[in-house]
Amino acid sequence: MHRTSDPAVIVHGGAGDLPEARASAVGAARLDGVRRACAAGAELLRRGGPALDAVEAAVRILEDDPAFNAGTGAVLTLDGEVELDAAVMEGETLRCGAVAVVKDVQNAVSLARAVLERTEHVLLVGPAASALAREAGIPAVENASLVTPAQRERWEAARRGASASRTGTVGAVARDVRGHLAAATSTGGMSMKRPGRVGDTPLIGCGTYADDGLAAVSCTGHGERIIQLTLARHAADLVGAGKTAFEAAREAIRLLAERVQGVGGLIVVGPAGPVGFAHSTPAMARAWTAEDGRIVTAL
Amino acid sequence: MHRTSDPAVIVHGGAGDLPEARASAVGAARLDGVRRACAAGAELLRRGGPALDAVEAAVRILEDDPAFNAGTGAVLTLDGEVELDAAVMEGETLRCGAVAVVKDVQNAVSLARAVLERTEHVLLVGPAASALAREAGIPAVENASLVTPAQRERWEAARRGASASRTGTVGAVARDVRGHLAAATSTGGMSMKRPGRVGDTPLIGCGTYADDGLAAVSCTGHGERIIQLTLARHAADLVGAGKTAFEAAREAIRLLAERVQGVGGLIVVGPAGPVGFAHSTPAMARAWTAEDGRIVTAL
Repeated sequence: MHRTSDPAVIVHGGAGDLPEARASAVGAARLDGVRRACAAGAELLRRGGPALDAVEAAVRILEDDPAFNAGTGAVLTLDGEVELDAAVMEGETLRCGAVAVVKDVQNAVSLARAVLERTEHVLLVGPAASALAREAGIPAVENASLVTPAQRERWEAARRGASASRTGTVGAVARDVRGHLAAATSTGGMSMKRPGRVGDTPLIGCGTYADDGLAAVSCTGHGERIIQLTLARHAADLVGAGKTAFEAAREAIRLLAERVQGVGGLIVVGPAGPVGFAHSTPAMARAWTAEDGRIVTAL
Repeated sequence: MHRTSDPAVIVHGGAGDLPEARASAVGAARLDGVRRACAAGAELLRRGGPALDAVEAAVRILEDDPAFNAGTGAVLTLDGEVELDAAVMEGETLRCGAVAVVKDVQNAVSLARAVLERTEHVLLVGPAASALAREAGIPAVENASLVTPAQRERWEAARRGASASRTGTVGAVARDVRGHLAAATSTGGMSMKRPGRVGDTPLIGCGTYADDGLAAVSCTGHGERIIQLTLARHAADLVGAGKTAFEAAREAIRLLAERVQGVGGLIVVGPAGPVGFAHSTPAMARAWTAEDGRIVTAL
């Protein structure tokens, strides 16, 4: 017999600097994007679908939305290319899959899921990840098709000395009607990063973690600082120790600032109760299912 | 004023199957290797050197020893090449560096340290890691120079259907006279792995972790299972919660078996007290400084 849980999902569109966001077209596009992603995940959960499906569906929508630093619209490396990282994790079984430094797929989150489902490995990088994509029937795309005019302009400006943004990632965490948790995160990484750099996103326990006995967590922000604290695992442990999702998120962000002078954000869902989030950046577009089932959005 | 601590170091030469090890030449070579590595680390600590120097020196000796699956003597991928992964972490500052899928350096642990010291990143993979090696003055070596006749024979046998070993890694953890901790791990990964696969070794919190407030940990074994539990961070947290290094190691290995049916081993050193270790494989070559300063070895 299965216990029935209240399903819940929360998505984020990346912690970052967006001082003009509330009034801007970018801000409006991001609010629309996180709402659509959250609605897709919530609808899957409402129909009894697994948490893993919900987080993958939500993240795919954000990857395809040029307003976010993931998939189409990802930031560019020093070399002017897109390099994608992503991870998924299932809280019931602790099964997980991740890819890093991928240049030729549109939805890195689905390739991460292919690692989970089709291989005995957790993390594949570079051409190996692309090879798996072809085995899994995920079509190759031209790297240039992932580059938006806005990101190309930012790259040109950064080359001329403009400061590059350090942050931006998309993610989703969910709890399904059977009480199972899942997390997914996807990113183009740090703007102007050294090619071959891997951030926190695809690292299990750093940017992404899910354990039915603890919580599901997706992080965003300065990846290197998040890695030093294995922040997703840390926040999940706080829920395991009795904190609410909100308390765990706030405590994790406080630790990030105090211990390693890092900024970022995260979203959390535990085995019961409302979702939680926190961020220390000026903005983190997000959308979540409130306890009455409505979808709430915020920048 | 600095508090003076009892320095301590423990190294491992990988958890694995070695049923005939106690009587064999391989077993003798491994015991000799871990003893030399531990002695090098202990001597650095005795002279007041930092824990990070001690773990790097110890791991370099194991990388250069063909009896171990790291550096020279690393296992081969499906494609018959060596791909190296390594990480280092410093407990005082939480600074860390790691590389994965590196084909052209002799000592991946020193390249991981170059990531820590020379970049703002934590993890560089593939050609990016090699490019940093050149910037750091670490010479390129031919991949073939890392391949030993014994590993080539094993690869040929595995291609003919012999079972491939899943385990093997080298690592060191240390506490210096100032009470600072460090961890280092290096590996050729899983025998017959898919090229581009990254295991637990270079993932901070999975195969390698160090935090002066908790413990320093280096893991070995079935990497994908270790990743699912972020085992190094988990064991460090157990020390932080009051367990001895030995208790934390044993509890971590028990969790690995019970939760994800994984086998492996780990070494642990906390802010005070003796070092600890545990393994669920038949063998794990190891050497450590006893409380009277002697070096003890075991298979």
